[in-house]
Amino acid sequence: MPYVKIELTREGVTREQKQELISGITNLITDVLNKDPHLTHIVIQEVDLDDWGYAGEQVSVLREKGITADKK
Amino acid sequence: MPYVKIELTREGVTREQKQELISGITNLITDVLNKDPHLTHIVIQEVDLDDWGYAGEQVSVLREKGITADKK
Amino acid sequence: MPYVKIELTREGVTREQKQELISGITNLITDVLNKDPHLTHIVIQEVDLDDWGYAGEQVSVLREKGITADKK
Amino acid sequence: MPYVKIELTREGVTREQKQELISGITNLITDVLNKDPHLTHIVIQEVDLDDWGYAGEQVSVLREKGITADKK
Amino acid sequence: MPYVKIELTREGVTREQKQELISGITNLITDVLNKDPHLTHIVIQEVDLDDWGYAGEQVSVLREKGITADKK
Amino acid sequence: MPYVKIELTREGVTREQKQELISGITNLITDVLNKDPHLTHIVIQEVDLDDWGYAGEQVSVLREKGITADKK
Repeated sequence: MPYVKIELTREGVTREQKQELISGITNLITDVLNKDPHLTHIVIQEVDLDDWGYAGEQVSVLREKGITADKK
Repeated sequence: MPYVKIELTREGVTREQKQELISGITNLITDVLNKDPHLTHIVIQEVDLDDWGYAGEQVSVLREKGITADKK
Repeated sequence: MPYVKIELTREGVTREQKQELISGITNLITDVLNKDPHLTHIVIQEVDLDDWGYAGEQVSVLREKGITADKK
Repeated sequence: MPYVKIELTREGVTREQKQELISGITNLITDVLNKDPHLTHIVIQEVDLDDWGYAGEQVSVLREKGITADKK
Repeated sequence: MPYVKIELTREGVTREQKQELISGITNLITDVLNKDPHLTHIVIQEVDLDDWGYAGEQVSVLREKGITADKK
Repeated sequence: MPYVKIELTREGVTREQKQELISGITNLITDVLNKDPHLTHIVIQEVDLDDWGYAGEQVSVLREKGITADKK
Protein backbone atom coordinates (compact mmCIF):
# COMPACT_ATOMS: atom_id res chain seq x y z
CA MET A 1 0.00 0.00 0.00
CA PRO A 2 2.20 2.84 -1.10
CA TYR A 3 1.09 6.45 -1.30
CA VAL A 4 3.49 8.99 -2.80
CA LYS A 5 3.22 12.79 -2.67
CA ILE A 6 5.40 14.90 -4.95
CA GLU A 7 5.64 18.63 -4.25
CA LEU A 8 7.17 20.76 -6.98
CA THR A 9 7.49 24.43 -7.73
CA ARG A 10 4.94 25.47 -10.39
CA GLU A 11 7.23 26.20 -13.31
CA GLY A 12 5.62 24.81 -16.44
CA VAL A 13 5.55 21.07 -15.75
CA THR A 14 3.59 19.52 -18.62
CA ARG A 15 0.92 16.85 -18.54
CA GLU A 16 3.37 14.50 -20.27
CA GLN A 17 6.07 15.10 -17.65
CA LYS A 18 3.56 14.36 -14.91
CA GLN A 19 2.63 11.10 -16.64
CA GLU A 20 6.34 10.19 -16.87
CA LEU A 21 6.75 10.78 -13.13
CA ILE A 22 3.62 8.76 -12.31
CA SER A 23 4.48 5.77 -14.51
CA GLY A 24 8.18 5.86 -13.60
CA ILE A 25 7.64 5.92 -9.84
CA THR A 26 4.86 3.31 -9.99
CA ASN A 27 7.10 0.99 -12.01
CA LEU A 28 10.01 1.57 -9.63
CA ILE A 29 7.87 0.70 -6.60
CA THR A 30 6.48 -2.36 -8.37
CA ASP A 31 9.99 -3.55 -9.24
CA VAL A 32 11.77 -2.76 -5.96
CA LEU A 33 9.00 -3.72 -3.53
CA ASN A 34 6.97 -6.18 -5.65
CA LYS A 35 3.80 -4.18 -4.94
CA ASP A 36 0.60 -4.54 -6.95
CA PRO A 37 0.40 -1.23 -8.88
CA HIS A 38 -3.37 -1.11 -8.20
CA LEU A 39 -2.44 -0.27 -4.61
CA THR A 40 -0.08 2.59 -5.53
CA HIS A 41 -1.46 6.13 -5.56
CA ILE A 42 0.67 9.16 -6.49
CA VAL A 43 -0.33 12.78 -5.95
CA ILE A 44 1.52 15.71 -7.56
CA GLN A 45 1.16 19.13 -5.95
CA GLU A 46 2.50 22.21 -7.73
CA VAL A 47 3.43 25.07 -5.44
CA ASP A 48 3.49 28.74 -6.46
CA LEU A 49 6.93 30.35 -6.33
CA ASP A 50 5.85 32.77 -3.59
CA ASP A 51 4.88 29.78 -1.47
CA TRP A 52 8.16 27.85 -1.55
CA GLY A 53 11.01 29.01 0.64
CA TYR A 54 14.59 27.86 0.18
CA ALA A 55 17.47 29.01 2.36
CA GLY A 56 15.17 31.64 3.83
CA GLU A 57 14.01 33.22 0.57
CA GLN A 58 10.95 32.82 -1.62
CA VAL A 59 11.76 30.94 -4.82
CA SER A 60 10.09 33.79 -6.73
CA VAL A 61 12.81 36.10 -5.37
CA LEU A 62 15.56 33.60 -6.21
CA ARG A 63 14.27 33.33 -9.80
CA GLU A 64 14.23 37.16 -10.11
CA LYS A 65 17.91 37.05 -9.11
CA GLY A 66 18.54 34.52 -11.89
CA ILE A 67 19.05 31.56 -9.57
CA THR A 68 17.46 28.44 -11.06
CA ALA A 69 16.96 24.84 -9.92
CA ASP A 70 18.24 23.44 -13.21
CA LYS A 71 20.70 20.60 -13.24
CA LYS A 72 24.17 21.99 -13.79
CA MET B 1 -5.38 17.00 19.14
CA PRO B 2 -6.39 15.44 15.91
CA TYR B 3 -5.59 16.86 12.50
CA VAL B 4 -7.12 15.19 9.45
CA LYS B 5 -6.17 15.73 5.80
CA ILE B 6 -8.46 14.44 3.06
CA GLU B 7 -7.12 14.33 -0.49
CA LEU B 8 -9.68 13.79 -3.24
CA THR B 9 -9.75 13.98 -7.00
CA ARG B 10 -11.43 17.23 -8.13
CA GLU B 11 -14.64 15.88 -9.63
CA GLY B 12 -17.46 18.18 -8.59
CA VAL B 13 -17.52 17.74 -4.81
CA THR B 14 -20.06 20.27 -3.51
CA ARG B 15 -19.85 22.59 -0.53
CA GLU B 16 -22.57 20.51 1.15
CA GLN B 17 -20.64 17.26 0.64
CA LYS B 18 -17.54 18.87 2.16
CA GLN B 19 -19.61 19.94 5.16
CA GLU B 20 -20.94 16.37 5.53
CA LEU B 21 -17.37 15.02 5.53
CA ILE B 22 -16.22 17.62 8.06
CA SER B 23 -19.09 17.14 10.49
CA GLY B 24 -19.15 13.36 10.06
CA ILE B 25 -15.44 12.87 10.70
CA THR B 26 -15.40 15.34 13.60
CA ASN B 27 -18.33 13.55 15.22
CA LEU B 28 -16.70 10.16 14.67
CA ILE B 29 -13.46 11.31 16.32
CA THR B 30 -15.40 12.87 19.20
CA ASP B 31 -17.33 9.64 19.74
CA VAL B 32 -14.52 7.11 19.28
CA LEU B 33 -11.70 9.02 21.01
CA ASN B 34 -13.69 11.32 23.33
CA LYS B 35 -11.84 14.36 21.91
CA ASP B 36 -13.00 17.94 22.34
CA PRO B 37 -14.12 18.94 18.81
CA HIS B 38 -12.50 22.36 19.32
CA LEU B 39 -9.17 20.57 18.98
CA THR B 40 -10.07 18.81 15.72
CA HIS B 41 -9.06 20.43 12.43
CA ILE B 42 -9.87 18.91 9.04
CA VAL B 43 -8.39 20.01 5.72
CA ILE B 44 -9.80 18.94 2.34
CA GLN B 45 -7.51 19.12 -0.68
CA GLU B 46 -8.93 18.59 -4.16
CA VAL B 47 -6.43 17.30 -6.70
CA ASP B 48 -6.68 17.83 -10.46
CA LEU B 49 -7.11 14.62 -12.46
CA ASP B 50 -3.77 15.12 -14.23
CA ASP B 51 -2.09 15.21 -10.82
CA TRP B 52 -3.38 11.94 -9.37
CA GLY B 53 -1.80 8.70 -10.52
CA TYR B 54 -3.34 5.30 -9.96
CA ALA B 55 -1.79 2.05 -11.11
CA GLY B 56 0.72 4.07 -13.12
CA GLU B 57 -1.78 6.22 -15.05
CA GLN B 58 -3.16 9.70 -14.62
CA VAL B 59 -6.77 9.63 -13.43
CA SER B 60 -7.59 12.00 -16.31
CA VAL B 61 -6.54 9.21 -18.70
CA LEU B 62 -8.52 6.61 -16.75
CA ARG B 63 -11.63 8.79 -16.94
CA GLU B 64 -11.17 9.24 -20.71
CA LYS B 65 -11.19 5.43 -20.92
CA GLY B 66 -14.48 5.39 -19.02
CA ILE B 67 -12.98 4.00 -15.79
CA THR B 68 -14.62 5.66 -12.78
CA ALA B 69 -14.12 5.53 -9.03
CA ASP B 70 -17.83 5.06 -8.38
CA LYS B 71 -19.03 2.48 -5.94
CA LYS B 72 -20.14 -0.58 -7.88
CA MET C 1 -9.47 8.28 -5.17
CA PRO C 2 -9.49 9.48 -1.62
CA TYR C 3 -6.49 9.35 0.68
CA VAL C 4 -6.97 10.35 4.32
CA LYS C 5 -4.26 11.05 6.90
CA ILE C 6 -5.20 11.24 10.58
CA GLU C 7 -2.63 12.68 12.99
CA LEU C 8 -3.32 12.12 16.69
CA THR C 9 -1.42 12.54 19.91
CA ARG C 10 -0.16 9.15 21.15
CA GLU C 11 -2.34 8.66 24.21
CA GLY C 12 -3.42 5.05 24.31
CA VAL C 13 -5.52 4.74 21.17
CA THR C 14 -6.40 1.04 20.87
CA ARG C 15 -6.40 -1.21 17.82
CA GLU C 16 -10.20 -1.35 18.05
CA GLN C 17 -10.51 2.44 18.08
CA LYS C 18 -8.29 2.66 15.01
CA GLN C 19 -10.50 0.13 13.25
CA GLU C 20 -13.58 2.18 14.18
CA LEU C 21 -11.99 5.30 12.68
CA ILE C 22 -10.97 3.45 9.51
CA SER C 23 -14.33 1.80 8.89
CA GLY C 24 -16.30 4.89 9.92
CA ILE C 25 -14.42 7.28 7.66
CA THR C 26 -14.41 4.84 4.72
CA ASN C 27 -18.17 4.34 5.05
CA LEU C 28 -18.73 8.09 5.29
CA ILE C 29 -16.72 8.73 2.12
CA THR C 30 -18.51 5.91 0.32
CA ASP C 31 -21.90 7.32 1.34
CA VAL C 32 -21.23 11.03 0.78
CA LEU C 33 -19.12 10.80 -2.37
CA ASN C 34 -20.27 7.44 -3.78
CA LYS C 35 -16.63 6.28 -3.98
CA ASP C 36 -15.59 2.66 -4.38
CA PRO C 37 -14.04 1.80 -0.97
CA HIS C 38 -11.25 -0.13 -2.74
CA LEU C 39 -9.89 3.26 -3.78
CA THR C 40 -9.91 4.71 -0.25
CA HIS C 41 -6.73 4.53 1.81
CA ILE C 42 -6.49 5.85 5.37
CA VAL C 43 -3.26 6.35 7.33
CA ILE C 44 -3.18 6.97 11.10
CA GLN C 45 -0.08 8.62 12.55
CA GLU C 46 0.34 8.82 16.32
CA VAL C 47 2.52 11.69 17.49
CA ASP C 48 4.48 11.74 20.76
CA LEU C 49 3.35 14.41 23.21
CA ASP C 50 6.70 16.20 23.02
CA ASP C 51 6.24 16.50 19.26
CA TRP C 52 2.82 18.17 19.20
CA GLY C 53 2.59 21.86 19.96
CA TYR C 54 -0.65 23.64 20.78
CA ALA C 55 -0.90 27.35 21.53
CA GLY C 56 2.89 27.47 21.74
CA GLU C 57 3.39 24.65 24.23
CA GLN C 58 4.23 20.97 23.97
CA VAL C 59 1.21 18.79 24.70
CA SER C 60 3.39 16.89 27.20
CA VAL C 61 3.67 20.12 29.19
CA LEU C 62 -0.07 20.79 28.91
CA ARG C 63 -0.83 17.28 30.20
CA GLU C 64 1.56 17.82 33.16
CA LYS C 65 -0.50 20.92 33.97
CA GLY C 66 -3.66 18.79 33.92
CA ILE C 67 -4.98 20.21 30.66
CA THR C 68 -6.58 17.43 28.59
CA ALA C 69 -8.15 17.20 25.13
CA ASP C 70 -11.20 15.35 26.47
CA LYS C 71 -14.65 16.35 25.39
CA LYS C 72 -16.19 18.51 28.08
CA MET D 1 17.51 18.35 6.50
CA PRO D 2 14.38 20.08 7.61
CA TYR D 3 11.23 20.36 5.54
CA VAL D 4 8.40 22.52 6.86
CA LYS D 5 4.79 22.64 5.60
CA ILE D 6 2.53 25.48 6.70
CA GLU D 7 -1.20 25.16 6.04
CA LEU D 8 -3.26 28.31 6.45
CA THR D 9 -6.78 29.42 5.62
CA ARG D 10 -6.77 31.61 2.47
CA GLU D 11 -7.65 34.98 3.97
CA GLY D 12 -5.50 37.59 2.28
CA VAL D 13 -1.99 36.60 3.36
CA THR D 14 0.37 38.89 1.44
CA ARG D 15 3.60 38.07 -0.34
CA GLU D 16 5.46 40.05 2.34
CA GLN D 17 3.85 38.06 5.16
CA LYS D 18 4.83 34.82 3.43
CA GLN D 19 8.41 36.06 3.16
CA GLU D 20 8.39 36.94 6.88
CA LEU D 21 7.23 33.41 7.73
CA ILE D 22 9.84 31.84 5.46
CA SER D 23 12.77 33.87 6.73
CA GLY D 24 11.63 33.72 10.35
CA ILE D 25 11.22 29.95 10.45
CA THR D 26 14.44 29.33 8.51
CA ASN D 27 16.36 31.55 10.93
CA LEU D 28 14.76 29.85 13.91
CA ILE D 29 15.74 26.39 12.64
CA THR D 30 19.25 27.58 11.86
CA ASP D 31 19.61 29.03 15.37
CA VAL D 32 17.97 26.24 17.39
CA LEU D 33 19.28 23.24 15.43
CA ASN D 34 22.42 24.71 13.83
CA LYS D 35 21.22 23.57 10.40
CA ASP D 36 22.63 24.86 7.12
CA PRO D 37 19.76 26.98 5.70
CA HIS D 38 20.51 25.58 2.23
CA LEU D 39 18.99 22.34 3.49
CA THR D 40 15.78 23.93 4.76
CA HIS D 41 12.74 24.00 2.50
CA ILE D 42 9.43 25.58 3.52
CA VAL D 43 6.12 25.16 1.69
CA ILE D 44 3.07 27.35 2.37
CA GLN D 45 -0.32 25.99 1.37
CA GLU D 46 -3.37 28.26 1.50
CA VAL D 47 -6.66 26.44 1.99
CA ASP D 48 -10.07 27.75 0.88
CA LEU D 49 -12.49 28.45 3.72
CA ASP D 50 -14.91 25.76 2.51
CA ASP D 51 -12.08 23.23 2.74
CA TRP D 52 -11.04 23.80 6.37
CA GLY D 53 -13.17 22.34 9.13
CA TYR D 54 -12.91 23.37 12.76
CA ALA D 55 -15.02 21.92 15.53
CA GLY D 56 -17.17 20.24 12.88
CA GLU D 57 -17.93 23.33 10.80
CA GLN D 58 -16.49 24.84 7.65
CA VAL D 59 -14.48 27.97 8.39
CA SER D 60 -16.53 29.75 5.71
CA VAL D 61 -19.61 29.15 7.89
CA LEU D 62 -17.78 30.30 11.03
CA ARG D 63 -16.74 33.51 9.27
CA GLU D 64 -20.33 34.14 8.13
CA LYS D 65 -21.29 33.88 11.82
CA GLY D 66 -18.66 36.51 12.62
CA ILE D 67 -16.26 34.09 14.33
CA THR D 68 -12.67 34.97 13.43
CA ALA D 69 -9.27 33.45 14.12
CA ASP D 70 -7.81 36.79 15.17
CA LYS D 71 -5.69 37.05 18.25
CA LYS D 72 -7.84 38.36 21.09
CA MET E 1 12.64 22.21 -5.60
CA PRO E 2 11.01 18.85 -5.35
CA TYR E 3 10.08 17.20 -2.09
CA VAL E 4 8.77 13.63 -2.20
CA LYS E 5 7.07 11.70 0.61
CA ILE E 6 6.63 7.94 0.30
CA GLU E 7 4.29 6.20 2.74
CA LEU E 8 4.50 2.43 2.86
CA THR E 9 3.18 -0.34 5.07
CA ARG E 10 5.94 -1.59 7.41
CA GLU E 11 6.55 -5.05 6.01
CA GLY E 12 10.29 -5.65 5.98
CA VAL E 13 11.54 -3.03 3.52
CA THR E 14 15.34 -3.22 3.65
CA ARG E 15 17.90 -0.43 3.75
CA GLU E 16 18.96 -1.42 0.22
CA GLN E 17 15.40 -1.20 -1.11
CA LYS E 18 15.04 2.25 0.44
CA GLN E 19 18.25 3.33 -1.26
CA GLU E 20 16.94 2.00 -4.60
CA LEU E 21 13.76 4.04 -4.18
CA ILE E 22 15.70 7.18 -3.24
CA SER E 23 18.20 6.98 -6.08
CA GLY E 24 15.60 5.85 -8.62
CA ILE E 25 13.14 8.64 -7.87
CA THR E 26 15.86 11.29 -7.67
CA ASN E 27 17.24 10.19 -11.05
CA LEU E 28 13.76 10.17 -12.57
CA ILE E 29 13.06 13.71 -11.37
CA THR E 30 16.46 14.87 -12.60
CA ASP E 31 15.82 13.33 -16.02
CA VAL E 32 12.17 14.32 -16.50
CA LEU E 33 12.28 17.80 -14.97
CA ASN E 34 15.99 18.68 -15.37
CA LYS E 35 16.20 19.48 -11.64
CA ASP E 36 19.45 19.78 -9.72
CA PRO E 37 19.44 16.67 -7.47
CA HIS E 38 20.83 18.80 -4.61
CA LEU E 39 17.36 20.35 -4.41
CA THR E 40 15.52 17.02 -4.22
CA HIS E 41 14.62 15.62 -0.81
CA ILE E 42 12.82 12.30 -0.34
CA VAL E 43 11.26 11.07 2.91
CA ILE E 44 10.14 7.47 3.45
CA GLN E 45 7.60 6.80 6.18
CA GLU E 46 6.79 3.21 7.17
CA VAL E 47 3.32 2.74 8.64
CA ASP E 48 2.34 -0.05 11.02
CA LEU E 49 -0.25 -2.46 9.63
CA ASP E 50 -2.80 -1.46 12.30
CA ASP E 51 -2.46 2.14 11.14
CA TRP E 52 -3.20 1.67 7.43
CA GLY E 53 -6.78 1.21 6.34
CA TYR E 54 -7.78 -0.09 2.93
CA ALA E 55 -11.37 -0.57 1.79
CA GLY E 56 -12.46 0.01 5.38
CA GLU E 57 -10.22 -2.59 7.04
CA GLN E 58 -6.87 -2.46 8.80
CA VAL E 59 -4.11 -3.96 6.67
CA SER E 60 -3.17 -6.13 9.68
CA VAL E 61 -6.61 -7.74 9.40
CA LEU E 62 -6.28 -8.15 5.63
CA ARG E 63 -2.91 -9.86 6.09
CA GLU E 64 -4.41 -12.23 8.70
CA LYS E 65 -6.96 -13.18 6.05
CA GLY E 66 -4.11 -13.94 3.65
CA ILE E 67 -4.71 -10.90 1.44
CA THR E 68 -1.38 -9.42 0.31
CA ALA E 69 -0.29 -6.38 -1.68
CA ASP E 70 2.05 -8.43 -3.86
CA LYS E 71 2.12 -7.97 -7.58
CA LYS E 72 0.06 -10.72 -9.20
CA MET F 1 -6.25 28.22 11.46
CA PRO F 2 -2.65 27.32 10.90
CA TYR F 3 -1.25 23.80 11.01
CA VAL F 4 2.53 23.37 10.72
CA LYS F 5 4.43 20.12 10.10
CA ILE F 6 8.19 20.03 10.65
CA GLU F 7 10.12 17.04 9.32
CA LEU F 8 13.67 16.64 10.58
CA THR F 9 16.34 13.97 10.46
CA ARG F 10 16.51 12.13 13.79
CA GLU F 11 19.87 13.34 15.07
CA GLY F 12 19.51 14.06 18.77
CA VAL F 13 17.02 16.92 18.83
CA THR F 14 16.23 17.53 22.50
CA ARG F 15 12.90 18.17 24.19
CA GLU F 16 14.05 21.74 24.87
CA GLN F 17 14.92 22.34 21.21
CA LYS F 18 11.49 21.07 20.19
CA GLN F 19 9.88 23.45 22.67
CA GLU F 20 11.94 26.34 21.21
CA LEU F 21 10.72 25.48 17.71
CA ILE F 22 7.09 25.20 18.86
CA SER F 23 7.03 28.46 20.80
CA GLY F 24 9.12 30.33 18.22
CA ILE F 25 6.97 29.35 15.26
CA THR F 26 3.72 29.93 17.15
CA ASN F 27 4.86 33.39 18.19
CA LEU F 28 5.97 34.18 14.64
CA ILE F 29 2.59 33.17 13.22
CA THR F 30 0.78 35.15 15.92
CA ASP F 31 2.88 38.23 15.15
CA VAL F 32 2.91 38.06 11.34
CA LEU F 33 -0.66 36.87 10.76
CA ASN F 34 -2.37 38.07 13.95
CA LYS F 35 -3.70 34.54 14.58
CA ASP F 36 -5.06 33.35 17.91
CA PRO F 37 -2.38 30.87 19.12
CA HIS F 38 -5.14 28.52 20.32
CA LEU F 39 -5.79 27.78 16.66
CA THR F 40 -2.17 26.96 15.84
CA HIS F 41 -1.05 23.33 15.95
CA ILE F 42 2.53 22.24 15.22
CA VAL F 43 3.66 18.66 14.63
CA ILE F 44 7.33 17.61 14.64
CA GLN F 45 8.25 14.37 12.87
CA GLU F 46 11.74 12.96 13.25
CA VAL F 47 12.89 10.79 10.35
CA ASP F 48 15.50 8.02 10.59
CA LEU F 49 18.63 8.67 8.54
CA ASP F 50 17.96 5.65 6.30
CA ASP F 51 14.58 7.16 5.45
CA TRP F 52 15.71 10.59 4.25
CA GLY F 53 17.22 10.91 0.80
CA TYR F 54 19.17 13.94 -0.35
CA ALA F 55 20.68 14.30 -3.80
CA GLY F 56 19.93 10.63 -4.41
CA GLU F 57 21.62 9.22 -1.30
CA GLN F 58 20.42 8.17 2.14
CA VAL F 59 21.45 10.68 4.79
CA SER F 60 22.88 7.74 6.78
CA VAL F 61 25.34 7.21 3.91
CA LEU F 62 26.15 10.92 3.71
CA ARG F 63 26.87 10.98 7.46
CA GLU F 64 29.19 7.93 7.12
CA LYS F 65 31.08 9.94 4.50
CA GLY F 66 31.40 12.80 6.99
CA ILE F 67 28.94 15.09 5.23
CA THR F 68 26.86 16.96 7.80
CA ALA F 69 23.91 19.39 7.66
CA ASP F 70 25.58 21.79 10.08
CA LYS F 71 25.62 25.47 9.39
CA LYS F 72 28.99 26.42 7.92
